[in-house]
Amino acid sequence: MLQKKLSQALDPEMHDGPGLSRTNNWIVALICLSILLGVFETEPNLTHGLEPLYAAAHLFFFAAFLIEYLARLYAASLNPRYGSPWRYALTFASLVDLIVLLAFIFPFLGLEATLFRMFRAARLVRLARLGRYSLAMQMISQAIVQRRYELGVSIVAAFGLMLLSSTALYLAERDFQPENFGSIPRAMWWSVATLTTVGYGDIVPVTPLGRIFAAFTAITGIGFIALPTGILAGAFSEALQNIRK
Amino acid sequence: MLQKKLSQALDPEMHDGPGLSRTNNWIVALICLSILLGVFETEPNLTHGLEPLYAAAHLFFFAAFLIEYLARLYAASLNPRYGSPWRYALTFASLVDLIVLLAFIFPFLGLEATLFRMFRAARLVRLARLGRYSLAMQMISQAIVQRRYELGVSIVAAFGLMLLSSTALYLAERDFQPENFGSIPRAMWWSVATLTTVGYGDIVPVTPLGRIFAAFTAITGIGFIALPTGILAGAFSEALQNIRK
Amino acid sequence: MLQKKLSQALDPEMHDGPGLSRTNNWIVALICLSILLGVFETEPNLTHGLEPLYAAAHLFFFAAFLIEYLARLYAASLNPRYGSPWRYALTFASLVDLIVLLAFIFPFLGLEATLFRMFRAARLVRLARLGRYSLAMQMISQAIVQRRYELGVSIVAAFGLMLLSSTALYLAERDFQPENFGSIPRAMWWSVATLTTVGYGDIVPVTPLGRIFAAFTAITGIGFIALPTGILAGAFSEALQNIRK
Amino acid sequence: MLQKKLSQALDPEMHDGPGLSRTNNWIVALICLSILLGVFETEPNLTHGLEPLYAAAHLFFFAAFLIEYLARLYAASLNPRYGSPWRYALTFASLVDLIVLLAFIFPFLGLEATLFRMFRAARLVRLARLGRYSLAMQMISQAIVQRRYELGVSIVAAFGLMLLSSTALYLAERDFQPENFGSIPRAMWWSVATLTTVGYGDIVPVTPLGRIFAAFTAITGIGFIALPTGILAGAFSEALQNIRK
Repeated sequence: MLQKKLSQALDPEMHDGPGLSRTNNWIVALICLSILLGVFETEPNLTHGLEPLYAAAHLFFFAAFLIEYLARLYAASLNPRYGSPWRYALTFASLVDLIVLLAFIFPFLGLEATLFRMFRAARLVRLARLGRYSLAMQMISQAIVQRRYELGVSIVAAFGLMLLSSTALYLAERDFQPENFGSIPRAMWWSVATLTTVGYGDIVPVTPLGRIFAAFTAITGIGFIALPTGILAGAFSEALQNIRK
Repeated sequence: MLQKKLSQALDPEMHDGPGLSRTNNWIVALICLSILLGVFETEPNLTHGLEPLYAAAHLFFFAAFLIEYLARLYAASLNPRYGSPWRYALTFASLVDLIVLLAFIFPFLGLEATLFRMFRAARLVRLARLGRYSLAMQMISQAIVQRRYELGVSIVAAFGLMLLSSTALYLAERDFQPENFGSIPRAMWWSVATLTTVGYGDIVPVTPLGRIFAAFTAITGIGFIALPTGILAGAFSEALQNIRK
Repeated sequence: MLQKKLSQALDPEMHDGPGLSRTNNWIVALICLSILLGVFETEPNLTHGLEPLYAAAHLFFFAAFLIEYLARLYAASLNPRYGSPWRYALTFASLVDLIVLLAFIFPFLGLEATLFRMFRAARLVRLARLGRYSLAMQMISQAIVQRRYELGVSIVAAFGLMLLSSTALYLAERDFQPENFGSIPRAMWWSVATLTTVGYGDIVPVTPLGRIFAAFTAITGIGFIALPTGILAGAFSEALQNIRK
Repeated sequence: MLQKKLSQALDPEMHDGPGLSRTNNWIVALICLSILLGVFETEPNLTHGLEPLYAAAHLFFFAAFLIEYLARLYAASLNPRYGSPWRYALTFASLVDLIVLLAFIFPFLGLEATLFRMFRAARLVRLARLGRYSLAMQMISQAIVQRRYELGVSIVAAFGLMLLSSTALYLAERDFQPENFGSIPRAMWWSVATLTTVGYGDIVPVTPLGRIFAAFTAITGIGFIALPTGILAGAFSEALQNIRK
């Protein structure tokens, strides 16, 4: 009876009504809060003097996610897709949950800073868990999968354009700015910033020839934006229409 | 009789012809001018020696908006939606009008500079009043409301992307630029500038790994632009077609 | 007989075949060359030692455009729209031609530099003359006229957004960067650069609050691009389809 | 018999199944690797101490592409379009193959650095070879050819806009920044960066008038992006639909 209630509360496939169950909504909110905690605790100005508060929050989130993990394992055997807790425990979603839990414990054991970094990055995988809950990432991934070939074409074209402009700028500027344009890989940093129209301006061509090449790069960069924008815009409007039907 | 004339002149719902009444057009023009006044008076180069002129303009706008406010209250009882001036006075639009009027008076009483700031910000709410007059904001808000779910999805996806790239850059650059990338919230400033392709260039990655992450961020930023562009473009073209019918 | 030949060669409405007559194609090419001349002669590196060449080119273009002007006047009386040379001479297109001719003569008379500037700017009006020849500007202006209301709405919305973000940044940054954010008009320079995603980076917020406002500005700037992009994209695709029919 | 097998393996027109033959897929992969080699070998940090490895890779790619070139010549006579190896050898694709081969040999003979540069640039033409293999560039070129006129119109309009804004900034800023805005060609570097919304920020207007002109340029730059984006988006969605049928 408890198992059935848990299954309906936690397993989206077992939920009767539309959208997420109330329990899952709360879990999504908890995950978002734990991500915010992970973001804020990296900023000394926001943690100074509040260390006990952060420790308590860590403990709270760990307890909450541990209970959720065990409850999901317990409830999984009612879902015909898994049958037993062990098959569910080996799904990608469940393994992500486990890694997130481990990331809570291990920092307390005094591991190396480099390990901390990796585990902290793993904590962000929590974001991937959100994908299970909403239609958002389903729709996005559906749109991307449906047009994967067209997007692949535009990525190849963009990469070719990037290589061409990097080489052109390398040839034009390497004698004047060896530090910034002394090799094609170095010129690529400039090339990416220009083709995506980000344009940091930390590295810019200074020779007339380099500027002419750069102008052509910037103008063709419009096409580099127009191509995937057109493809994605079409794909998303299609995907949105399919969902509405 | 005067009340009916005022109602037809001031209340868009009581106006017979298409568009705005001549009176309301003049009021819109006055509001725009008062906003320009508020903008210009913050620039010393534009106010130096012209203080009496600005004071006179303030007085003029205050008088005009006070008369308009009282006239609207008087005319409101003819509109079945309000019935009495008091019910109209408590609508959001009317309260905004009142705040704007108060913002005119209180600076003269010698309040603190911080209060001035807040009132000055309130003065900009006049912009919101313009929304009552034209189809512009109606259409925009209609398009946004209609696609609120799709836009929400893209905002969540963009926020996730921002978190991911901030964390990646924080991990790659924190030891080399602790001031700029020493925490995830600090790295977010760079991340927003890159994902929106603004690219100020005040903060840029300097390590090869950071630049590779940044290149991926800039390229995925194209999708970050393409997604809401596609959704909004579709929503606005739909909204424009609905209005035309 | 000569008048008729000139009319068919110069007046697009009197031309039999599709597109422009051979004579008008040559004149378009001449106009483009004269614009390039005007552009290049401002750069000392490109004029040094070539002054006689530039003077000769000036003389050549002046003679060519004078002959063209007189021939157009002579041929105009055959076009029922004008009837007489004098009515044609007072059309906007013909007056532009005359101003361009005058801009050639007056620099030789030793006028002031400031006048030179104005005349040089007038020389660029030649570009407007190109509009008579091709479908290009017709289509563009048709698309813009057809959606003038929608574009007006988006311009008003964008201007309001710019005012709001300028005021927000002015309030957040004025005490820290009085030179750059000391007044709303000054903050507008930053605001335009951010909302259009140009992002020069010469002026950037430095306070946490200012950066939060700036992040919102940059993100809403995506909508500022998406709105006119969607409207214009639709307008141009419509205009292109109408032309093809 | 060998000739027929080679023809089916190498000549896309003689290949039976859909897509590329397994042999051609391998060749595409080899070409991509050789491009990466050419890119990496320009960066001293990536070549230091690995010179023998790079030399061996050069030799390997040269041998592979030489064998491929000869095999293609041998197999070409079975294709009715060429008939004989000599006719195939004079096609554009085959000449590009030959230039790429020559670019491998000549650096070893001790030519001048400037020649190296040209040959290195020629090596990038390998990218053009990829166009033979995939639908990608076919579709892109088809979309561009189909809307060549519309794109031409937008390029002309963009160029006119660039000239106008360059001249305006030149007039406004030349006395204050003679190095950056002292001539129209110099102002064009700024103009391209602004109209494409790249916005490096290495050169920015400093006078109020220049900033007002720049603001108008940046805002019209949105249209400069919207126009080709709309045209290309429509062209690609059409091209994609045609391919799918």
